[in-house]
Amino acid sequence: MAVKQFETIVAHAKNSGFVFQGSEIYGGLSNTWDFGPLGVELKDNIKRAWWKKFIQSHPNNVGIQAAILMNPKVWEASGHLKGFSDPLMDCRHCKTRHRADHLIEEATEGKVVPEGWSNEKMMDFIKENHIACPNCGSHDFTDIRQFNLMFKTFQGILEDAKNTIYLRPETAQGMFVNFKNVQRSMRRKLPFGIGQIGKSFRNEITPGNFIFRTREFEQMEMEFFCKPGEDLEWYEYWKNFCMSWLTRLGLTTENLRFREHTPEELAFYSKGTSDIEYLFPFGWGELWGIADRTDYDLKCHQEHSGESLEYLDPQTNEKYLPYCVEPAVGVERLMLAFLCDAYDEEVINEKDTRIVLHLHPALAPIKACILPLSKQLSQQAKDVYGQLADSFVCEYDEAGSIGKRYRRQDAIGTPFCVTIDFETEKDGCVTVRERDSMNQVRLPISELEAHIQAALKF
Amino acid sequence: MAVKQFETIVAHAKNSGFVFQGSEIYGGLSNTWDFGPLGVELKDNIKRAWWKKFIQSHPNNVGIQAAILMNPKVWEASGHLKGFSDPLMDCRHCKTRHRADHLIEEATEGKVVPEGWSNEKMMDFIKENHIACPNCGSHDFTDIRQFNLMFKTFQGILEDAKNTIYLRPETAQGMFVNFKNVQRSMRRKLPFGIGQIGKSFRNEITPGNFIFRTREFEQMEMEFFCKPGEDLEWYEYWKNFCMSWLTRLGLTTENLRFREHTPEELAFYSKGTSDIEYLFPFGWGELWGIADRTDYDLKCHQEHSGESLEYLDPQTNEKYLPYCVEPAVGVERLMLAFLCDAYDEEVINEKDTRIVLHLHPALAPIKACILPLSKQLSQQAKDVYGQLADSFVCEYDEAGSIGKRYRRQDAIGTPFCVTIDFETEKDGCVTVRERDSMNQVRLPISELEAHIQAALKF
Repeated sequence: MAVKQFETIVAHAKNSGFVFQGSEIYGGLSNTWDFGPLGVELKDNIKRAWWKKFIQSHPNNVGIQAAILMNPKVWEASGHLKGFSDPLMDCRHCKTRHRADHLIEEATEGKVVPEGWSNEKMMDFIKENHIACPNCGSHDFTDIRQFNLMFKTFQGILEDAKNTIYLRPETAQGMFVNFKNVQRSMRRKLPFGIGQIGKSFRNEITPGNFIFRTREFEQMEMEFFCKPGEDLEWYEYWKNFCMSWLTRLGLTTENLRFREHTPEELAFYSKGTSDIEYLFPFGWGELWGIADRTDYDLKCHQEHSGESLEYLDPQTNEKYLPYCVEPAVGVERLMLAFLCDAYDEEVINEKDTRIVLHLHPALAPIKACILPLSKQLSQQAKDVYGQLADSFVCEYDEAGSIGKRYRRQDAIGTPFCVTIDFETEKDGCVTVRERDSMNQVRLPISELEAHIQAALKF
Repeated sequence: MAVKQFETIVAHAKNSGFVFQGSEIYGGLSNTWDFGPLGVELKDNIKRAWWKKFIQSHPNNVGIQAAILMNPKVWEASGHLKGFSDPLMDCRHCKTRHRADHLIEEATEGKVVPEGWSNEKMMDFIKENHIACPNCGSHDFTDIRQFNLMFKTFQGILEDAKNTIYLRPETAQGMFVNFKNVQRSMRRKLPFGIGQIGKSFRNEITPGNFIFRTREFEQMEMEFFCKPGEDLEWYEYWKNFCMSWLTRLGLTTENLRFREHTPEELAFYSKGTSDIEYLFPFGWGELWGIADRTDYDLKCHQEHSGESLEYLDPQTNEKYLPYCVEPAVGVERLMLAFLCDAYDEEVINEKDTRIVLHLHPALAPIKACILPLSKQLSQQAKDVYGQLADSFVCEYDEAGSIGKRYRRQDAIGTPFCVTIDFETEKDGCVTVRERDSMNQVRLPISELEAHIQAALKF
């Protein structure tokens, strides 16, 4: 296998219909991306796979979908209005803008991580260590200002403070504010989880690495509520659950690792936080954050809203605020990991190579491509397509040689190519060619659906 | 069947876990709604049913997912920056705000519909006909101002005109700007459609009727591109396709009608526009808009972007801008129609009534509820739950009498209740009770999945 070049994978994703630049015909809009016909299927398959294991088939959990626009008091309670900001400073000489913490990290080659530092402490460090502007080498910086990362907008006619609302920077708060509503209407007992998939927005100053960090992104978050004291057990449970979800869907084990947060970077209320990191072609990057958040969030909302969020334990008759474990992951980031992991340029023989995406069949955008060996067979082939397309996303392709059509499907990760030939009418069978092994088997048409369905399990 | 009271249906949706008030513990945020565990499943099932018929199994169509944040030039080209606004006026006496067109419609009891009128024409009409403020009876109105309905926000640090962007007010433009990208990467020939499901935002002054009109909502739109001259045929095709999708999913035919736009209200570029309307408990309301938009949108984007959006016809070697037919529908509105249509208070006998949601099984939030006849049988019941929950959203319920548990499932639309009894261990069979007929059949556990799966077809 050749070394994977990030640029090659990005170019492939753009050319083959996975990801387009947002508003491309207008020169784009900085760091926005549109998902093409293959990208939207891959993304939806990732979301469905999460929902299936975290919500649908997990007896403790239910889903919700909260609005993106929330009462601003939510962000007061959660601390986002005050604390969700980046420390920015400008170089007076060349007018470039920098994140103070990134300047320190880069100047010390990562030996100093200014997590939790005050602006003063960072400023002092920058001055004492003579850290220069990476663009022009000057030492003439402005003071550090905190820049809030929430996008703001106005509801109603007047653009004033009273009408200011925010695009949510995370989906998690939707679960906390609905804790009581869900518990009551669904008659839930602890432990139980509430999960959600939805868009969040962060006005990042330095987004980048293709779809790894974007201003508009989709999250899959779950808040798992349990009895205080049982939280560390559930914390381990969800760490393992997330990791096993990733590997069962085919991510290479060697490209995955846990990174436990150090005491310095751990939030004051958290009893433990771990990131699952993935080895992207550009280095290790955070994929999934799993955190034991204790009762911090419910407590904040209880204080700010004045509504009791306590749980009445039916066994002990005690009232208490549940503890909460949160596994949170971004869909686009996950999609990028699956794409990078699946991408391969395979040498078949001295004269032949192929691009292939070894995506798990459950994630592959197209499950089967139906190919008539000759255009004379197109009616039969279209009949088979019609049968399968009711259950799966399928493609029909009659253009070019069979070999060329196979390659096209390999390159977009289609696990099965189904060829209709001149024998098909007589024996009711088709040739099914599997993407990774390139093996072919002959199967009755009536068994096709079950054959594909079996491959989708994970 | 009792007359359906809208308030009763809304209360039922709120109490049983379909829809909660957004940010409820903070007193809400005007006209935002959160979808609870049942609501999110119903909503997702509607989206899946649309995707299945409009995208997945339709050989001409593919899907995309474009970003909510687009380059502002998109809204210049589409006309939204200039024309997407409501005519507002204030009563100087009581300080209430009104839509001028609504004032006219209400004062004339719908006999005058000021579609396409200028502000001057509306103002003159209001003065000549002595239309009064519906709140205080005064005739002292301010002039009419146009209020743009797009939510605006700022990308980057500075809140200035250069950084102003908008939350998309419709998903349609995502398909138009990606027309070439999709056509090229997917090697598509006309006719073909591009569909998308996603959030849109409109800063409406008078939203209302529960989830019928909300500021944040989800759309399912498709742009079907075809050769000019074939557009009216496709317009009829998609009108029928949409209507048949609705009735196959169980909406009552008598509650549905087409309303063809009159020449006065038809947009100047449209060759025909029809609404499918549904008879909600509060009256007829627009559900689906199907429009023949000619080449208007592609032409606008071609002019504003300077990029050719022409299609090279491989048969005739001609270059032209395709025509476009657009069926557009809102998910929450559709969900409300399905809920209203399904809701019933059934008299079973003199002493007994039940609330039942006659939702099509494909749309029902929970497909099956597993009930052990006695708590002694809970392990067996949980095994059956585990088997089914891998394929469907299921519930497990062991609390209360069987009759009570049936009623609970009827009220949330669960099509099947599966009872495990003392015979089950011996004969491997369970009793399956169907929601609408209340008929019971005894089935081997091994046939359960296929039995439920068969009911999901539509």
